[in-house]
Amino acid sequence: MELRVYLAGQIHDAWRDELKQKAEKKDLKVKFVHPQENHSRSDNVGEDILGEQPNKEIKDDKASAINNFRTKLLMERSDAVIAYFGENYKQWNTAMDAGIAIQAGKPTILIRDESLIHPLKELSNQATVTVENIDQAIEVLNYVYE
Amino acid sequence: MELRVYLAGQIHDAWRDELKQKAEKKDLKVKFVHPQENHSRSDNVGEDILGEQPNKEIKDDKASAINNFRTKLLMERSDAVIAYFGENYKQWNTAMDAGIAIQAGKPTILIRDESLIHPLKELSNQATVTVENIDQAIEVLNYVYE
Amino acid sequence: MELRVYLAGQIHDAWRDELKQKAEKKDLKVKFVHPQENHSRSDNVGEDILGEQPNKEIKDDKASAINNFRTKLLMERSDAVIAYFGENYKQWNTAMDAGIAIQAGKPTILIRDESLIHPLKELSNQATVTVENIDQAIEVLNYVYE
Amino acid sequence: MELRVYLAGQIHDAWRDELKQKAEKKDLKVKFVHPQENHSRSDNVGEDILGEQPNKEIKDDKASAINNFRTKLLMERSDAVIAYFGENYKQWNTAMDAGIAIQAGKPTILIRDESLIHPLKELSNQATVTVENIDQAIEVLNYVYE
Amino acid sequence: MELRVYLAGQIHDAWRDELKQKAEKKDLKVKFVHPQENHSRSDNVGEDILGEQPNKEIKDDKASAINNFRTKLLMERSDAVIAYFGENYKQWNTAMDAGIAIQAGKPTILIRDESLIHPLKELSNQATVTVENIDQAIEVLNYVYE
Amino acid sequence: MELRVYLAGQIHDAWRDELKQKAEKKDLKVKFVHPQENHSRSDNVGEDILGEQPNKEIKDDKASAINNFRTKLLMERSDAVIAYFGENYKQWNTAMDAGIAIQAGKPTILIRDESLIHPLKELSNQATVTVENIDQAIEVLNYVYE
Amino acid sequence: MELRVYLAGQIHDAWRDELKQKAEKKDLKVKFVHPQENHSRSDNVGEDILGEQPNKEIKDDKASAINNFRTKLLMERSDAVIAYFGENYKQWNTAMDAGIAIQAGKPTILIRDESLIHPLKELSNQATVTVENIDQAIEVLNYVYE
Amino acid sequence: MELRVYLAGQIHDAWRDELKQKAEKKDLKVKFVHPQENHSRSDNVGEDILGEQPNKEIKDDKASAINNFRTKLLMERSDAVIAYFGENYKQWNTAMDAGIAIQAGKPTILIRDESLIHPLKELSNQATVTVENIDQAIEVLNYVYE
Repeated sequence: MELRVYLAGQIHDAWRDELKQKAEKKDLKVKFVHPQENHSRSDNVGEDILGEQPNKEIKDDKASAINNFRTKLLMERSDAVIAYFGENYKQWNTAMDAGIAIQAGKPTILIRDESLIHPLKELSNQATVTVENIDQAIEVLNYVYE
Repeated sequence: MELRVYLAGQIHDAWRDELKQKAEKKDLKVKFVHPQENHSRSDNVGEDILGEQPNKEIKDDKASAINNFRTKLLMERSDAVIAYFGENYKQWNTAMDAGIAIQAGKPTILIRDESLIHPLKELSNQATVTVENIDQAIEVLNYVYE
Repeated sequence: MELRVYLAGQIHDAWRDELKQKAEKKDLKVKFVHPQENHSRSDNVGEDILGEQPNKEIKDDKASAINNFRTKLLMERSDAVIAYFGENYKQWNTAMDAGIAIQAGKPTILIRDESLIHPLKELSNQATVTVENIDQAIEVLNYVYE
Repeated sequence: MELRVYLAGQIHDAWRDELKQKAEKKDLKVKFVHPQENHSRSDNVGEDILGEQPNKEIKDDKASAINNFRTKLLMERSDAVIAYFGENYKQWNTAMDAGIAIQAGKPTILIRDESLIHPLKELSNQATVTVENIDQAIEVLNYVYE
Repeated sequence: MELRVYLAGQIHDAWRDELKQKAEKKDLKVKFVHPQENHSRSDNVGEDILGEQPNKEIKDDKASAINNFRTKLLMERSDAVIAYFGENYKQWNTAMDAGIAIQAGKPTILIRDESLIHPLKELSNQATVTVENIDQAIEVLNYVYE
Repeated sequence: MELRVYLAGQIHDAWRDELKQKAEKKDLKVKFVHPQENHSRSDNVGEDILGEQPNKEIKDDKASAINNFRTKLLMERSDAVIAYFGENYKQWNTAMDAGIAIQAGKPTILIRDESLIHPLKELSNQATVTVENIDQAIEVLNYVYE
Repeated sequence: MELRVYLAGQIHDAWRDELKQKAEKKDLKVKFVHPQENHSRSDNVGEDILGEQPNKEIKDDKASAINNFRTKLLMERSDAVIAYFGENYKQWNTAMDAGIAIQAGKPTILIRDESLIHPLKELSNQATVTVENIDQAIEVLNYVYE
Repeated sequence: MELRVYLAGQIHDAWRDELKQKAEKKDLKVKFVHPQENHSRSDNVGEDILGEQPNKEIKDDKASAINNFRTKLLMERSDAVIAYFGENYKQWNTAMDAGIAIQAGKPTILIRDESLIHPLKELSNQATVTVENIDQAIEVLNYVYE
C-alpha cells in the first residue's frame, strides 16, 4: 500500500530533503508532496503569473491564493500530514495547515524541538502524534508498514 | 437574531475587553466566547485539576487538553470566529484555531496589523475577511445587522 | 415553528420588500435575512471599513469579502434559500449562492420569469422548487405550515 | 501524480480546446473533463433520449437533468475545478457550478477578463484563485507540479 | 427537552391523528411534523400554485417538487423520524424518506405490521428500531424521557 | 475513465443482464455492481451462514444484515446508482436504496415505466435523471463519455 | 450559555447522581442526559414494548435497538460527552459510545481510575480530556464557564 | 474489485492469521490491514521511538498516539471493518474502533462468541452484521463477490 504524505512547514531550509532521503533509505512506500520550496518563487508567484500588483499586500495576497490552491489540492489527496516547526520564522501557515488537517480528520504528525513544547502545546495535544525530530517521524511512518 | 462569536488569539493583553466594550457601545446583539484569559490559570489548569505532573511537557499537555476541550466546545457553538494576531508571542494556537474554523466552514475574521501582512498572507487569503484593527472587526459584525 | 429564509438575488430593486409584505399578510412565521440591500453601501463597504484601496479590483475584492462574510453567516443560519432572478444584471452571485445552497443541502426555491427558462435550466433542475413569481414562492412557504 | 480537472463554463466557443492544447504543450499530467460541448446535443439530449416533450420548458428540464447527471458525476471525480466566464451569454450554470465546487471544498480557479471584475467580485473572492486568461490558469496548474 | 419528530408515510388514512392523540395522552413533549395530509391538496399543489400543466407527468412532478421542499425542510429540523407502512398503496416515498433519514443519521422508528416483515426486511434492519404498531412507537418515544 | 455503477432494484427477473449486455454492446467503460441476484440465496443467506434461526422474522433480519453489508460497501464504492422499478413486487428496498443514494449525493438514475409515474413522483423528482427503460439509462451513461 | 452533556457509561451504580449533585452544587448551567439507568428496565425494554421474544439473543437485540435509539438521539443533541469507566463490568458500549462521540467531533471527557490507564490508553489518547474522578470532570466543565 | 478490510481487535493471539489464511483459501481479493500485532512492540513503541518516558501513564500515552496514527490512517483507507471480541482482555479499544467505524459509515462485521451476546448487545445492534466466528466472517466477505 502506497501512502501520500503532505509536508507542511516553512520553506527556508532543506528539512524536506533530509526527510525524503531518510524515507528512501528505509524503502518506505511513501510519496511526499509539499508547498513550493523555492522561497522567492513562492513569494513572487502571484506577480510571476498575474503581472505586477499595486502594492506589497496585494502581491502577497495573489501569491497566497496560488500557494493555497496547491496546498488545498495536495492535502486533499494525502493520507497524512506532517507539520514541522523550527526555531525561526513565524510559521503561521504551518500552524494553520495543521489546524486544517486536524479538522479534516487527516492523521497528523507534529515535529517540533523540545524548546518549542510550550508555545505548541495546544497544537501538539490535537495532533495525532508529536515527535522531536525527523528520524522519529520516519519511524512513525515506518510503523504503519510493520 | 443573536450571534455567538468565538475570539481566538493570545491571552496576554486585554484586546477582548476592548472588542467587547466597542461591541456593546454599538448595541450589537453578539455574545462573545473565548479561551481562558487568565494566563497563569490557562497554563496551570492541568495541574490545578489533575494534580502535579512529572515534568513540564506533561504539565503543558494536560493543560492543553482542558483548554482544547473548552475551545472545541465553544467554537462548535459559535456562528463566526475572530482570530487576532499581535506583534508579540508565537500565537501558533491562534493560527491553528483559525485553520480549524476555516476547515469547519465558520465565517472567519482575521485581525492583524499592516506589519504582519507577509507572515499571515496564506491565512489572510483563506479567512473570510481580513481587517487591521478591532474597530474594523466590529464594523464587519455590525454590517451583518444593517 | 419559526423558519428563517435567506433571500439571494440582486439588490437593485425592491423585490424583497414585496416578498416580505406578502409574507406578512399571510401571517407566515418566517424571518427573512438577505444581503445588504443598499447598493452603494454594498459596493463601497470595503473602502468604508478598510479605507481607500489602490484600485477598483481591490476595492471590489474588499467589499466582496465583507458581503461574503454576511452571506455565509446568514445562509448557514437559514432553513431554506430563495434565489430570485430578473431580466436585468448579470446576477452571477445569485447563481453562485444558489449553487452553494444546493450543495449544502438547503431546500431552495428558484424564482424566475418564463423568459429565463432556458438560461436557468440547469439551476432550475437542481433547485428544490422553481416558481415564476413572488406570490408563488410565498405559497410554497405557506404550504409548509398547512 | 495525475490530476483530473473539471472545466465549467459555456459551450459556445472552443476555449476548452485552447486550454487542453496549452496543457499538453506543457506536458501537464492533467486529465480534463467537462460538460457536453456540442451545443445542440446539450440542448436536445432530453428529447434525443426520452422522446418529444410537451413544451420547451419540459424539453429544457429533461436536457438539464441529463447534463446535471454528467456534471455531478464528473465534478465529484475531479481534484479541482476551473470556471471560465466570457463576455457573452448569461453563464448562470457556470456560476452555479462554481458555487457547488466551492461548497464541496474543491480548489477552484476562476478565469475572467478584467472587464468582468465587478459582476464577478463575490465569486472571485470565494474562488481559490482568480486569473484573467487561459495561459495564467495553465500556469497555476503547472505550479502544483513545480 | 422538547423533541421534533417527522412522520413519514402515506396520507390516505388518519394514522398520524391516532399517533398524536396517543402522544398527547402520555404528555410527551414531542412536536410532530409531517407531509401535507390532505391527499388531493398534495396531488394538486403543483397546479394549485403554478397553474395548469401540460400533462399528468408534469403535474405530478410539480406537485412533488413542492412536497419535497416541505419534507426536506421539516426532516432537517427534526430529531427523529417515524416511518409507517400499511397494507395498502405502494408507499415508495415512505421508503425513500426512510432511506434519506437513515443516511442522514437521524434516529428512525419503522412501524410495520407483522405481515410486512419480509418485504421490509432490509429497511427494518437499517432502521434504529422496528415496531408493529403506533402504541409501541409511542412507548419508544416515551422511553427517551424515562 | 472507468466508472462503477450500483444497480439497485428487485432480483426476480434478469433486468441487470439486459442492461449489462446493452452496455457492453456500446463499449461503455462501466463496471456494474449490485445486490445478490440469486433470490433464494439472498433470502436464505442469513441461515446459510449463521445457521437455523428461531423464526421467519429473525431469519429475514439475519439475511438482511448480510445483504445490507454488501449493498453499503458496493454503493460507497460506486460513482452512480441506477434504481429500477417494475410493475410487480413491493420494491421497498429499491426505494430505500435510492433515498440513501440521493442523501449521499450519488448521481442517481431512476428507471420506471410510464404506468408508475404517480406512485414514484417524489422519488423521480429527487433522482438526478428519470428514464422509462433500460435503453435510455444506457444512453444517459453513454452521454458522460461523449 | 446552557450546555447539554451526555453521560455514557455503565448503569449498575449511581455515579451519574453523584456527578449531577456535584454539578448542581457548583451551579453549572449544564443539563445532563444519559441512557436508561434502571438496569432491569434497560435489559427488558425490548420485551416490555414488543412482547416476548423467541430467545435471549433476540430479547437483547430488541432492547438494544431501543437503547440505541435513545442514545443516538440524545448524543446528537449534546454539546459534549462524558464517558465513565469503572473497575467492573465489560463496559463495551461505553467504549463504543466514546468512539462514536470522538468520530462525530464531540468534545469528550474520559473518567477512569489510575488502575485502568493501560487498557484504556488508546481511548484516553483520542478523548479530548482524561480525568481520574468525577470531581475533576466537574472542574473541567466548570472551566468552560470561567 | 479489490477490497481493503481493517481488522480491529486484541493482539494477544493469532486470530488474524487464521482469518487471512481462510480468506486466501477462498481466493478472496481482499487485502487485510490491522494494528501492530507484536504486543510488546505495540506497548513499547512510544519509548522505542521517543525515548524513555517519566512514568507508565506517559509511556502508554506515547505508544497509543503512534498506534492511533496507524489505525486512523489504515481505517480511513479501508472499505470495511471487522471487529473481533474474545473471552479475555478488556478489549476497549476494539469497541472504540468499532464505534468510530460505525459513525464513519464503514460497513462493520462484529465477530463475537455466543457467550458475549449480552455485553455486546448494543454494539451488535449497531454493527452491520454480527457473526459468531471467523469462518462466518469470511463467508460474509465472500458474499460480496458472489
